[in-house]
Amino acid sequence: MDADTLAALARLIRAQRAAALGTVRDGLPFVSMVVYAFEPDFSAFWLHLSRLALHTQAILADPRIGLMIAEADDGAKDAQTLARVSIQSEAIVLTQTPPEYSAAKMLYLARFPEAQTMFALGDFDLYRIEPRSARFVAGFARAYNLTAGNFREAAKAE
Amino acid sequence: MDADTLAALARLIRAQRAAALGTVRDGLPFVSMVVYAFEPDFSAFWLHLSRLALHTQAILADPRIGLMIAEADDGAKDAQTLARVSIQSEAIVLTQTPPEYSAAKMLYLARFPEAQTMFALGDFDLYRIEPRSARFVAGFARAYNLTAGNFREAAKAE
Repeated sequence: MDADTLAALARLIRAQRAAALGTVRDGLPFVSMVVYAFEPDFSAFWLHLSRLALHTQAILADPRIGLMIAEADDGAKDAQTLARVSIQSEAIVLTQTPPEYSAAKMLYLARFPEAQTMFALGDFDLYRIEPRSARFVAGFARAYNLTAGNFREAAKAE
Repeated sequence: MDADTLAALARLIRAQRAAALGTVRDGLPFVSMVVYAFEPDFSAFWLHLSRLALHTQAILADPRIGLMIAEADDGAKDAQTLARVSIQSEAIVLTQTPPEYSAAKMLYLARFPEAQTMFALGDFDLYRIEPRSARFVAGFARAYNLTAGNFREAAKAE
């Protein structure tokens, strides 16, 4: 992949806050909204989910997930050309054991300081999603299959 | 459901263009971006998909889908409070037989005039999604389970 495409992927991941989470619920695909944090090297994404939420119940029954980060639509351009990356992976709950938990919590709170109160609640956990395979649509007729290596390369882009 | 909530649902559906489509691909949830049109009474949503696209191949293998319409994030408010509705249903390809096809095509093109050229291509079809059950999150701690009847009620809101 060329440097421009990697930089576009990095911009997309850094610029957005919300993503669409795909799970399987009652045997049907279910898409819900989540907010995400990420490791600086894009090796993992972090979700902070309540066990009371429908998507979390789906993950606890079956950890396979899809996660799409899409450019927010401000109505200015052809909607079909909005950039988006679709990750397919698993969401793995993180045990609340330092130091990994503390590091992930710090990353998450740096991005979402308003989530501090949620960390005090008993029903929330951090879930780790490692991007293994993904599809990146950078714009019209610009689609790429990504590996975990591509994410790491993109993370080096400014 | 109260009138304010129904009106918020109608505003969300009418204001957005893009949605997150959930399918199952290679046994994993897959989330991709689509644009959507809808019947004025919200009895159905219309997607115009290429058979060459990954999500369409997934639908042709298994029509069960999730569709989430989320308020575009402009960064102004707590991302967790963005409105979104998650539909679980099936995507059924429409045979190109008048008058239903012509009517759906007109609705679609009224919303996406730039899609005219895609209707001339042989690999595109219209898919009908009837909202049967759905989850509507209108804002923080404001979540509702919706029936098809709720969508029809919302369509009457100004």
